[in-house]
Amino acid sequence: MKDYLESRQKLVDEALDGFLPTANTKPKTIHKAMRYSVFAGGKRLRPILCLAAAECCGGSAATAMPLACAVECIHTYSLIHDDLPCMDNDDLRRGMPTSHKVFGEGIAVLAGDALLTLGFEVASQAAESPRYSLREVIRELAVACGSQNLIAGQVIDLESEGRKVSLPLLRFIHESKTAALLRSSIRLGGMSANATPRDLEHLSNFGRALGLAFQVIDDILDVTQTSEKLGKSAGKDLADEKATFPAVVGLERSRKAAKQLTDQARLALRPIGRRAETLHGLAEHLLDREY
Amino acid sequence: MKDYLESRQKLVDEALDGFLPTANTKPKTIHKAMRYSVFAGGKRLRPILCLAAAECCGGSAATAMPLACAVECIHTYSLIHDDLPCMDNDDLRRGMPTSHKVFGEGIAVLAGDALLTLGFEVASQAAESPRYSLREVIRELAVACGSQNLIAGQVIDLESEGRKVSLPLLRFIHESKTAALLRSSIRLGGMSANATPRDLEHLSNFGRALGLAFQVIDDILDVTQTSEKLGKSAGKDLADEKATFPAVVGLERSRKAAKQLTDQARLALRPIGRRAETLHGLAEHLLDREY
Repeated sequence: MKDYLESRQKLVDEALDGFLPTANTKPKTIHKAMRYSVFAGGKRLRPILCLAAAECCGGSAATAMPLACAVECIHTYSLIHDDLPCMDNDDLRRGMPTSHKVFGEGIAVLAGDALLTLGFEVASQAAESPRYSLREVIRELAVACGSQNLIAGQVIDLESEGRKVSLPLLRFIHESKTAALLRSSIRLGGMSANATPRDLEHLSNFGRALGLAFQVIDDILDVTQTSEKLGKSAGKDLADEKATFPAVVGLERSRKAAKQLTDQARLALRPIGRRAETLHGLAEHLLDREY
Repeated sequence: MKDYLESRQKLVDEALDGFLPTANTKPKTIHKAMRYSVFAGGKRLRPILCLAAAECCGGSAATAMPLACAVECIHTYSLIHDDLPCMDNDDLRRGMPTSHKVFGEGIAVLAGDALLTLGFEVASQAAESPRYSLREVIRELAVACGSQNLIAGQVIDLESEGRKVSLPLLRFIHESKTAALLRSSIRLGGMSANATPRDLEHLSNFGRALGLAFQVIDDILDVTQTSEKLGKSAGKDLADEKATFPAVVGLERSRKAAKQLTDQARLALRPIGRRAETLHGLAEHLLDREY
């Protein structure tokens, strides 16, 4: 799995390098800022899931690549904006100073805007499959990162800082903030491979449970790991009184929930059979990760 | 022309109302914020140009409407982000407090993000024409508001505040910040109407000159009009030492440039003949506007 992940990261990095304007493109500041965040050592989890979903449905990584890269651009934009002083106010991300710390707030806002826009430009380069037109692909992506999903999660997250949050509301935050785009990465991979409606449904269920598991584990790691290992300020969620799983149900129950959700994710793959082997491996890997 | 503009504004407003999630959609804050800025009394110039371009090429306003609304969503996002404290720091827009003044900076950033995203979702609903696929339509839009156009203009604008700016650099700012999206609004209208490549070329030239004229006039009005009339803080460009036409070449030469650019725009329409009558009228109207 380690070799697989490394080779996939490399593949995704190369493709992203091709899709992003060079650092010398004018105006240089914005393109440097875009590249700074995109190449800040991300794990490329969403693109790798996208490619694996495509292969699971008999498609190719090359065909899914524009969608994988579009998702990563959009994920990176969301991190840049989330880190802004008017949002989570984070100084550190993946062990490096955040965009606004390096380039200033104005450029950080614009770099996020530019990566969101580039995400759609790159997605528009995706090949259509017989079952899924470009219209459906763009819509899938826009809904996942729109005001009722990715952005909704960030809104509620922002509004609930310092407040006591119920478990259902926390689930809503996690579903919209994290699971929606992660699920879409997987669905988009399937769509690029002309997945049957049934397979796409299984992949959706897998993606949703995996996305939730991923965020619960993220919350746990914030409490249990060092800043050095995480590459961001550990314990910050707690200090900011953020709505997290450990804060709402405690560490022990959070661990159980993560395990349960990962099981649920893997169960959703069962009807796909052996074709889903890589996705199983990725789910296992995510549960066991330490940062 | 006044009746025409009013009826068109109404048509565009109704369509926008249908494309935007209702103010009761959860989370309410973000949808209220999106609607607040979209329905803050914008003149709907870009959508109206888009519809007129479609009709000029034998198409219908109804077919062009998703693209007209997509452009307006994206234009509104750019205003919300431009007004942020870390950008132009404006308190007033169209006579109303700016988004971050009403909803706070965090929500204002997210409302802009949501409108940009919605712009692409709405654009993906556009009908394809025989000559122009959805791929080309999305690409047209993404490039116009991307890091080498709309966002590039804002970057240079931000970086040149308080500095002496040359006329060529000022032209670059205006071309990217204003003309690119305005030109694209017109091109997208043409594309929705299956415009011939030749007509599309004429419309492009028209849009570029008109966009430049529009921004020069905007710069002039900032100096010559009252805040009340403008609905935003008059004289603010000057106070902020922004790169504007009057600041670089003086008021007299700015007026001449606006006239020249409008003439140039209308000249570009000549080969289209009488079909372009409405576009001529719109260009005239823009030159004569007082706010």
